[in-house]
Amino acid sequence: QCHLTGWWENELGSRMHVSTVDSQVDFSSKYHTAVSSAQKPIEPSPLVSSQHLDEDRQCTFSFTINWKKFSDSTAVFMSQCFTGAGGEEVLQTTWLLREKVDSLPSDWKATR
Amino acid sequence: QCHLTGWWENELGSRMHVSTVDSQVDFSSKYHTAVSSAQKPIEPSPLVSSQHLDEDRQCTFSFTINWKKFSDSTAVFMSQCFTGAGGEEVLQTTWLLREKVDSLPSDWKATR
Amino acid sequence: QCHLTGWWENELGSRMHVSTVDSQVDFSSKYHTAVSSAQKPIEPSPLVSSQHLDEDRQCTFSFTINWKKFSDSTAVFMSQCFTGAGGEEVLQTTWLLREKVDSLPSDWKATR
Amino acid sequence: QCHLTGWWENELGSRMHVSTVDSQVDFSSKYHTAVSSAQKPIEPSPLVSSQHLDEDRQCTFSFTINWKKFSDSTAVFMSQCFTGAGGEEVLQTTWLLREKVDSLPSDWKATR
Repeated sequence: QCHLTGWWENELGSRMHVSTVDSQVDFSSKYHTAVSSAQKPIEPSPLVSSQHLDEDRQCTFSFTINWKKFSDSTAVFMSQCFTGAGGEEVLQTTWLLREKVDSLPSDWKATR
Repeated sequence: QCHLTGWWENELGSRMHVSTVDSQVDFSSKYHTAVSSAQKPIEPSPLVSSQHLDEDRQCTFSFTINWKKFSDSTAVFMSQCFTGAGGEEVLQTTWLLREKVDSLPSDWKATR
Repeated sequence: QCHLTGWWENELGSRMHVSTVDSQVDFSSKYHTAVSSAQKPIEPSPLVSSQHLDEDRQCTFSFTINWKKFSDSTAVFMSQCFTGAGGEEVLQTTWLLREKVDSLPSDWKATR
Repeated sequence: QCHLTGWWENELGSRMHVSTVDSQVDFSSKYHTAVSSAQKPIEPSPLVSSQHLDEDRQCTFSFTINWKKFSDSTAVFMSQCFTGAGGEEVLQTTWLLREKVDSLPSDWKATR
């Protein structure tokens, strides 16, 4: 079982700080992205998680980042935490990034 | 601007009921999926949203569904609401579904 | 089993014409996209398929579209053909669109 | 500009051998996957590419792998080659894997 509290960093240099995880194993946090396709300068952005804890204390969970301070977009990561070969904790993720588009015909290109 | 409260149904027959949207425009809800790859019978499952409301009242948002009653998986939808040509409200979504896997080497196949 | 030859149209109005399918069930074709994020005007673009035919004559296959006439991007569709409830042929697809990016640090945003 | 000929290996241990690239910069190859969700034993599988070469000799391209010897699936990778910080060649990819499903109602789960 992973302990999610603390700092996490991905291979792009983006960083996330998890301060506390409640009894429902949900957490809120700040995400410091290293990359952006927006015009405005990057700012740390609020993050909320939604966890799914099993009896074996392993879980799959999502966390959603609201970039409202500098962008029209929302990002979501789907994640599971693993213990690596060297005993370190590894957070495997996939993500979707949705930009606000003007109208339905532009929807096809909204999501990366 | 869309009014999210009420029933939504997708092309697979899955249904979601949004009862209230708070002042932060977040909502919690029940999701009634029509499809599943789990062994256990399907049950309505809790859903939490994380919204991103702009000044123009348009928004991109995610909602996460925790299938804990019958499955090890978590699903997340990224969404934006549009007004269609006939004035109807249309929720465009993309989704990720993550199944719990046993170990890091199986992680490549965890997400659809 | 589907007969792929003929015109196909998707919900965005993009159209694809498959003229012949060879004994290996591969085909080449022209794809007329209705949507683009490039600056130059849209032109019909060449398409090549790579099929996977089973003994039961059902198959999963990809087709790749090279937008070289007006864009730096490449698109690929993964597909399976089905017979719908009314006997009509339905091509279900998912796609990836990759834009050329300048360098490795921009790679995170290259693919939709 | 990258030289695609030779052996490539990914982080899962899957390996691909590109022997020749023709004047259209297309190639065919063998892909030796290290991972599989099929029942039958893994075998090296044929691969075809579809490239998009620009004037600056950079390109985005796809390659499709037909697992027909042991699986009903087809995989496609979207790729761009970069020169890394240490001068090494790096192939960045995203992929889709489609399994054959029996009917249209099962299509939602066909693609990872």
